[in-house]
Amino acid sequence: MSRLNVVVWGENIHEHRNPKVGAIYPRGMHEAIAEGLRASGDDLEVTTATLQQPEHGLTSARLAATDVLLWWGHLAHGEVADAIVDRVQARVLEGMGLLVLHSGHHAKIFRRLMGTTCSLTWREAAERERLWVCQPGHPIAQGIDRCFELPAEEMYGEPFAIPAPDEQVFISWFEGGEVFRSGCCWHRGNGRIFYFRPGHEMYPTYHDANIRRVLANAVRWARPQGSRWVDSCPNVTEPRERIGR
Amino acid sequence: MSRLNVVVWGENIHEHRNPKVGAIYPRGMHEAIAEGLRASGDDLEVTTATLQQPEHGLTSARLAATDVLLWWGHLAHGEVADAIVDRVQARVLEGMGLLVLHSGHHAKIFRRLMGTTCSLTWREAAERERLWVCQPGHPIAQGIDRCFELPAEEMYGEPFAIPAPDEQVFISWFEGGEVFRSGCCWHRGNGRIFYFRPGHEMYPTYHDANIRRVLANAVRWARPQGSRWVDSCPNVTEPRERIGR
Amino acid sequence: MSRLNVVVWGENIHEHRNPKVGAIYPRGMHEAIAEGLRASGDDLEVTTATLQQPEHGLTSARLAATDVLLWWGHLAHGEVADAIVDRVQARVLEGMGLLVLHSGHHAKIFRRLMGTTCSLTWREAAERERLWVCQPGHPIAQGIDRCFELPAEEMYGEPFAIPAPDEQVFISWFEGGEVFRSGCCWHRGNGRIFYFRPGHEMYPTYHDANIRRVLANAVRWARPQGSRWVDSCPNVTEPRERIGR
Amino acid sequence: MSRLNVVVWGENIHEHRNPKVGAIYPRGMHEAIAEGLRASGDDLEVTTATLQQPEHGLTSARLAATDVLLWWGHLAHGEVADAIVDRVQARVLEGMGLLVLHSGHHAKIFRRLMGTTCSLTWREAAERERLWVCQPGHPIAQGIDRCFELPAEEMYGEPFAIPAPDEQVFISWFEGGEVFRSGCCWHRGNGRIFYFRPGHEMYPTYHDANIRRVLANAVRWARPQGSRWVDSCPNVTEPRERIGR
Repeated sequence: MSRLNVVVWGENIHEHRNPKVGAIYPRGMHEAIAEGLRASGDDLEVTTATLQQPEHGLTSARLAATDVLLWWGHLAHGEVADAIVDRVQARVLEGMGLLVLHSGHHAKIFRRLMGTTCSLTWREAAERERLWVCQPGHPIAQGIDRCFELPAEEMYGEPFAIPAPDEQVFISWFEGGEVFRSGCCWHRGNGRIFYFRPGHEMYPTYHDANIRRVLANAVRWARPQGSRWVDSCPNVTEPRERIGR
Repeated sequence: MSRLNVVVWGENIHEHRNPKVGAIYPRGMHEAIAEGLRASGDDLEVTTATLQQPEHGLTSARLAATDVLLWWGHLAHGEVADAIVDRVQARVLEGMGLLVLHSGHHAKIFRRLMGTTCSLTWREAAERERLWVCQPGHPIAQGIDRCFELPAEEMYGEPFAIPAPDEQVFISWFEGGEVFRSGCCWHRGNGRIFYFRPGHEMYPTYHDANIRRVLANAVRWARPQGSRWVDSCPNVTEPRERIGR
Repeated sequence: MSRLNVVVWGENIHEHRNPKVGAIYPRGMHEAIAEGLRASGDDLEVTTATLQQPEHGLTSARLAATDVLLWWGHLAHGEVADAIVDRVQARVLEGMGLLVLHSGHHAKIFRRLMGTTCSLTWREAAERERLWVCQPGHPIAQGIDRCFELPAEEMYGEPFAIPAPDEQVFISWFEGGEVFRSGCCWHRGNGRIFYFRPGHEMYPTYHDANIRRVLANAVRWARPQGSRWVDSCPNVTEPRERIGR
Repeated sequence: MSRLNVVVWGENIHEHRNPKVGAIYPRGMHEAIAEGLRASGDDLEVTTATLQQPEHGLTSARLAATDVLLWWGHLAHGEVADAIVDRVQARVLEGMGLLVLHSGHHAKIFRRLMGTTCSLTWREAAERERLWVCQPGHPIAQGIDRCFELPAEEMYGEPFAIPAPDEQVFISWFEGGEVFRSGCCWHRGNGRIFYFRPGHEMYPTYHDANIRRVLANAVRWARPQGSRWVDSCPNVTEPRERIGR
């Protein structure tokens, strides 16, 4: 079996503007995420891309060769070019897996694929988050106990303005009193989409072993399942049955 | 518009065995639930039925005239006759609404309609529960704020072994650290099904104004939507198109 | 109960370019659709809007007062202004019902709400279409027999590139040998969406009694269900539980 | 990777009662199905079981070792012992895949898992069936063209009384004028379920190359995805957060 091509896309701004973020993620959040994936097995070929690169690092050729794309963005959703969003959407529908992380809930690509606003409530108070597994047998939950905790995270609360998930893998409990659908699966076209809530830039979330395990599982779950599919709208002039007998 | 016929079914055991339950619900839990519904509008005709009645109070004639059935059971799921479960299932598929309450998650009728075990984790510690609205525009959430609290309830925790809900109306936060999908909607046949978590017998939950509002909303939501449907498996000997031309 | 405000939006081009279409729909397709709805009951207040009007006839004020919008377009999807599509999408998420008709499968608003390409296969051969009811108890199928026929229609065939429908009301059989998911329901935000396949401009489909019945049913099904909802992403600085005890 | 244990369960009655069926399937329908699967790759270990065997060939030990079970029944659904149905259901929820074939739509195990009657309309007229692919990228549709035909089959028509499928892989067109949701996927507990319509005993359907391809794909799709899961309803007496501060 050939290796899966995985690209971790990072907005790559907080790390340079905020020394605290830079201290947690000295090589950037995207590199920390990539490092965790690389450590998860030899079946992945993991590279990174950032907003600042030409075409945000997502040329047509590169996307065509990508099996699973991870997306972390926050400050600069509006700076992502629509043409690149079109391209990523087309590749997801064609079969590429997509993992949308944390503040990526408001990324153009996620809103585009969901058709909704993907809004939520939030609070920055360094509070405890506990993620509960709703489907213990789901591939994304393998190796995870009944629940796991993050000592300090940003809070995201319901209502989360998404279409009903096809599968609900995690729901979060927050110390301040809220709940959130933290791990959600959807199928769109040939592609699999997983939204995973944790990952605020101010905390070492992407160094956490459970978080790394979930992302490693999710990348394998989201890998392309079937054949490539060129979407089209053909005129089938020749019927299979005779018309007008 | 004619009134909706609503039947509140109660197991009716705790109230007689445990004086504390009897003190909270002197006329039975089912009567407290019925009272709340009656107070919600003149469009409902609300009666009650209990396990101890002949045919558990659910004769074929009565079920045939019932628009929405509410079900509370706990200690005696096994004493509910299979023939009555068959009958209730058939009426749900025909279009009768069904509201399954609290410990009814393990009732034969709920497991029958879900096809799964409907298991969960639990704890009796009189802890605080906060129910969050996931779909603020859903008919069942009308008149409910972003969330509401119950000062003391039994805890139910994930994983809740159900098919993915068609709509997720509420998710609960518990003081002891768990979360739970507390308000779930499914369509089965012509019938609408709503599971609503709160309602432990040791607490005055069915006297709570928010709980009453949710139940009142859910009864209207679950009312039969279309025509009666006699399920059958007909042999259609006469094709609409000529075969073998 | 106040009347439902229904707006039928028509692209309004074929009727003027093609005398055959003009002969079938002398006042425009949108007016024929509106006429059928008006005849269905006094509970509807039905008006029309067209592409050629300022803001395509869909000002913010008008949309804010619209309960259900019907959309027929074909030749000029690209001429619909993105700002108007944004506006319609926001109103659907807020609770307005949307019925997308026939070639509207490729309308910007439908693709936006689905997140997929909504492509399909097609053929113009004036062939027989038979629509089968998959859910006889669904409100949209009330008054419709097990199936109904259209003597001549354009063919649309699978694969239809949509997210899995929440409810499948109709599937079509075509004389030339294809099938198609002809009546599909989705929930997005607070809004209900119904796609209904028939309605090629060259045939008198919108004069057909069954088609009119389905549209009349679907308008009532799609009416706003709950409260208006202003989507937002609030910072909830004050937690409901004390953090960091 | 170890091989998948696949068990093909056959009712095994028609083959002995009807010489025409016996001529098409001299070693039984189950053996023909098994033969097709064996030819599909070395990764499968395929055996068969029949109604007439002790415990219908489905002992607890054997089921515990089964990864995917295929089920063909028709005349004797009522003779399948409820205890065996309980056992199969428990294994599906634990993670075993289940493929329900043709007249198995009325098998106890399928109705049990669906919660509905699974009724449909039918006709025996040796008519042409054409199965269309609704999701070209789905693993079950790999290697299948846009559609494929069976020259003579029994007809099954809508309405098919099932819960909305999680994924719609095939829809059938029938020469006599009907349509049917022929390939449907559901998730229940940890298990994957696929219903596949064709397979009337009077036709050589299970010798057809496309049918064999679909079954071979579906077995791999339905293989257990995650860990074994012992369903339970534990009392979690020790909370993770202190109650009553």
